[in-house]
Amino acid sequence: MTFEPGGETIEVPDGTLISQAAEEAGIELNLPCGGQGRCGRCAVVVEQGQVLRRSTSRLSPEALEEGYALACQTVIESDVIVTVPPQEKIERRLPTAQRVAKITVPFAYDWSRDQPIQKYFVAIKPPSLDDNTDDVARLKRDLQGQHGIDVQHLIMDLPVLRKVAGVLRDSEWRVTAVLEMDTWLSPDGPPRLVDLLPGDMTSSCWGVAVDIGTTSNVVYLVDLLTGEVVDTASDYNGQIARGEDVISRIIYATKNDGLHELQDLVVGTINRLLARLAERNNLASTDIYKMTVAGNSTMIHLFLGLPPESIRLEPYITTTNQPPPAKAEQLGLDINPQATVDCLPGVGSYVGADITSGVSSSGICVAKELSLFIDIGTNGEIVLGDCDWLIACACSAGPAFEGAGVRDGMRATAGAMEEVWIDQGTLETSYRVIGDEQPRGICGSGLISLLAEMFITGVVDKAGNLNLGLDTPRLRAGDHGPEYVVAWSQEAATGRDIVINKVDIDSLLRAKAAVYAGFSVLARNVGLDLDSVARVLIAGAFGQYLDVETAVQIGLLPDLPRDKFRFLGNTSILGAYWGLLSRERRQQVNEVAQRMTYLELSADNSFHDEWVSALFLPHTHITDFPSVMELLKNRADS
Amino acid sequence: MTFEPGGETIEVPDGTLISQAAEEAGIELNLPCGGQGRCGRCAVVVEQGQVLRRSTSRLSPEALEEGYALACQTVIESDVIVTVPPQEKIERRLPTAQRVAKITVPFAYDWSRDQPIQKYFVAIKPPSLDDNTDDVARLKRDLQGQHGIDVQHLIMDLPVLRKVAGVLRDSEWRVTAVLEMDTWLSPDGPPRLVDLLPGDMTSSCWGVAVDIGTTSNVVYLVDLLTGEVVDTASDYNGQIARGEDVISRIIYATKNDGLHELQDLVVGTINRLLARLAERNNLASTDIYKMTVAGNSTMIHLFLGLPPESIRLEPYITTTNQPPPAKAEQLGLDINPQATVDCLPGVGSYVGADITSGVSSSGICVAKELSLFIDIGTNGEIVLGDCDWLIACACSAGPAFEGAGVRDGMRATAGAMEEVWIDQGTLETSYRVIGDEQPRGICGSGLISLLAEMFITGVVDKAGNLNLGLDTPRLRAGDHGPEYVVAWSQEAATGRDIVINKVDIDSLLRAKAAVYAGFSVLARNVGLDLDSVARVLIAGAFGQYLDVETAVQIGLLPDLPRDKFRFLGNTSILGAYWGLLSRERRQQVNEVAQRMTYLELSADNSFHDEWVSALFLPHTHITDFPSVMELLKNRADS
Repeated sequence: MTFEPGGETIEVPDGTLISQAAEEAGIELNLPCGGQGRCGRCAVVVEQGQVLRRSTSRLSPEALEEGYALACQTVIESDVIVTVPPQEKIERRLPTAQRVAKITVPFAYDWSRDQPIQKYFVAIKPPSLDDNTDDVARLKRDLQGQHGIDVQHLIMDLPVLRKVAGVLRDSEWRVTAVLEMDTWLSPDGPPRLVDLLPGDMTSSCWGVAVDIGTTSNVVYLVDLLTGEVVDTASDYNGQIARGEDVISRIIYATKNDGLHELQDLVVGTINRLLARLAERNNLASTDIYKMTVAGNSTMIHLFLGLPPESIRLEPYITTTNQPPPAKAEQLGLDINPQATVDCLPGVGSYVGADITSGVSSSGICVAKELSLFIDIGTNGEIVLGDCDWLIACACSAGPAFEGAGVRDGMRATAGAMEEVWIDQGTLETSYRVIGDEQPRGICGSGLISLLAEMFITGVVDKAGNLNLGLDTPRLRAGDHGPEYVVAWSQEAATGRDIVINKVDIDSLLRAKAAVYAGFSVLARNVGLDLDSVARVLIAGAFGQYLDVETAVQIGLLPDLPRDKFRFLGNTSILGAYWGLLSRERRQQVNEVAQRMTYLELSADNSFHDEWVSALFLPHTHITDFPSVMELLKNRADS
Repeated sequence: MTFEPGGETIEVPDGTLISQAAEEAGIELNLPCGGQGRCGRCAVVVEQGQVLRRSTSRLSPEALEEGYALACQTVIESDVIVTVPPQEKIERRLPTAQRVAKITVPFAYDWSRDQPIQKYFVAIKPPSLDDNTDDVARLKRDLQGQHGIDVQHLIMDLPVLRKVAGVLRDSEWRVTAVLEMDTWLSPDGPPRLVDLLPGDMTSSCWGVAVDIGTTSNVVYLVDLLTGEVVDTASDYNGQIARGEDVISRIIYATKNDGLHELQDLVVGTINRLLARLAERNNLASTDIYKMTVAGNSTMIHLFLGLPPESIRLEPYITTTNQPPPAKAEQLGLDINPQATVDCLPGVGSYVGADITSGVSSSGICVAKELSLFIDIGTNGEIVLGDCDWLIACACSAGPAFEGAGVRDGMRATAGAMEEVWIDQGTLETSYRVIGDEQPRGICGSGLISLLAEMFITGVVDKAGNLNLGLDTPRLRAGDHGPEYVVAWSQEAATGRDIVINKVDIDSLLRAKAAVYAGFSVLARNVGLDLDSVARVLIAGAFGQYLDVETAVQIGLLPDLPRDKFRFLGNTSILGAYWGLLSRERRQQVNEVAQRMTYLELSADNSFHDEWVSALFLPHTHITDFPSVMELLKNRADS
């Protein structure tokens, strides 16, 4: 057996694990999970020869195709050559913003005429004493004559009207009319003259799709002529400094001039992203003629300057779930001042436009099979349904998955442990840190993997109690009760131990129980079993980094066949993108918002019972989690 | 014969003129026209006894009814008692603004439901967990349920949306919705929520009608519930300091930031008038929910901030003759910021919304008989037509009638001679000065009466040449050719002689010829004679002070039976008033603007010839002026 790239060769009997052979050959393989095939960190490439893969957990079909195998789960059956890749070469999921760049439109119909921003070049007959019609009437006459536009009720606002005379004369009556075909009022409303440009400017046409997340804002720059996303930019929502979650933002907004301040902050963030996109792509911000926006209801309220107080207070009411179109100049956005800013509609206070966008862009709303759509963040929003019906709920998971409310929790930024493994034998930890730095804390995905590892290795029992009887210095009595040391002070950037305690674990249990109870109540409400779900679609920035295995192990996700799970990434911005590009798809979001039944969990009698049942690892009803039962049985056997 | 109030008694033979008797009795009667019965200044009241009135010129039927008689034209036929009124008691026409206050609506249909601003009180069911529809949807639901409003496409702008949540909760869900039923988009467009007020605020509803004249701005405060004009205010257009006429304003607007400055000035004037009305009538400026505006095309362009340059340059093109609705906040107007500012449509650069308003409010457009509508100012706008057709033209009279371009001309303000008489025998002048001050100059109506008097008394011939051969020191050679002294330096506030010279006279001739040629070309264009005109309607602030006799004598107005003439006052503001109050009447102005044919005189071959023919006093074709022929014959006889 030969190891590349070093070329070390060693003789071992058939049936030897690659990890054992590597150890014998003096090659250090990272085995953070202690060789249990759970972490995927020991993946190697089998270049030549026969092997038997006992488990392929964490390896994608593409990776298998390329010969990847888990060193701790694969035995050799012939002479083999194996390449040990540099550890970090194992692909991590990339942030959505990068992954979806250069989308091209797969629409079956002619979206290029369907998207509402249209430019028309018009050569206008100059006026004379015999033909002294006014400027606007001339423009309308030729728009109708040359392009068949129904101009009878053409909407034109003062700022555009003020430039008409100058543009017509400076350009010698050869101009480009930028029309928005309808969105301002209604799907069959009259067109609006958004701008008038000198000469023929029809060779480019720009729009932007925006996702206003509580944590991150994302902007797609979209070429409206080709439908391509030509560039993307994202950054933290500037409001973060005024509160990490929607509730603290709402509270902040009610104080003094908090609402204006929060509005300015998010607009400032979006403007910085717009400036970056404009500069990189060599265009003027005024060349952007449309913005379509998705986001949760609180984010949309703060963006539009609508007071959000009543979202937080029972009975949880928004000012509106269907914001009217606004103009960029009204909001201080650095695109064309006359551009329409179209905020997609939501369903209620806690099922906003981010979810209707997700349901529309993921295609649940047109699928025959039953889908479960999950967006987990501070709140878990859950949708169950198909092309005939849709039901949604929001479960207040609390900020634990965002790393808040946990002693050493933190956001998923540089220095955050994003994955943790516990060695079954030694109960020692290994971890992966964002940015490969010394750890400063643990982010949401790290907490989930830590809790799963603690449970599987017996560090905590099914009620989340720490087993202080185990023989490891990592388990100890802390200031706030029993705790487990994830990283010692000397490893940590903070210079102090990074720990998880019983209080933290309870927060995580409450959070995951709320989400799981949400699924259960939704399914029960429509009289279905979770088994009948054909697809589980996981959306949202946090979902991107979620590992299905560990999420099932703690009972956050239902224990369904793994091929039913799909990670969709940021479906909110995707919905905004489709809504920008297609009136048909934009209309679909409306239809989704109107069709979706919102189940208010705080008004549902069964929710509390379901939640209490879900407060255990993985769940009171362990039989609903066969794969976890199997794993625990294996542990007991070993 | 007895004179009151002094009680002087004198014996005279039957057939003695009252003026002669007064002279014998030592009573000073003002006879500015030298006793020719032209000025009407010697009017007295015959209290008792028989008299014969040889002429009743300048006396209204009402005055005759009350016993008035011209002392210089009335002989006694029995014992009589005559009262000599204080000179200034003879009624002067009042400014329009005062005259039309307290208008009540004579509409035959239910205008109160037709006028577009409607307030609806709505008691909204508060939300609960079981009924958690958003605020806006609740409002719409109850607006539809309680008032039958079709709310499907209800337009709502951000500033209103931002107050919805607060108003609903502060008022405990009892609110007044202020709706504009359509005007924003089209006659059958959706309603718009202009404002949302706490409690029941339906007991008042305010709008304003505005006339933006080149010289004066007028605002009517209208109670939209009763249709009454409850108060009016007017002032000089603040732009006057930047040019007296539209052409100088346009030139000013093209320089540097001139357009913005002029816009600020007119908005400032209107805001001052609004503040005055609001204070006097104890209302908040934000209680005013609609503004309807009339004015000439240049004034409307400057008001809206549209560049007016092309109005001045051949082929004389406006940006638009049908300005779209604007919002008060866009224009900086101090009414409700969301109120619609509706500028009425015009026909072209020199036939603006002041004229379409006039044609609509004067009823020409629905009359069976043929009307000639004249608005004389710097430009004379003329409309000929009836319910089937309308043709209009504008003749550039120049600013002579505004008192500009004439050596001692001035605007019709305090110190202006507004009427002048010349004694046939002595060629001495008398005059009436606005404000009863010492004269500073001569305004338009004064110039017309002066020119008429000079012509009738032979001071000038029919070509306007001064007859230096006459025996009076008032006729002399001046620095700019022959001149006539209207007031000597010792009478004048300026301390120098007030004169009229040949250059001034030529300006006046060109001005009056342009207007008369306008009539002639219009009539010729439709193949009609001016005699077939049933009514001559004289509109405009200047028209108010115009005297038909003197205007006919110089050939400014056609010599038609005097009972065909009507002075309408400010028909521009009347049109704005009707347009504010009634969608039907507002639609009529649109229809007038579309139906009216605009005849561009500078493109008409016959205009120049007609103009040259009209450069004489009263006209080359003197036979078209029988009353003037008669007057001249009387003079020759005497």
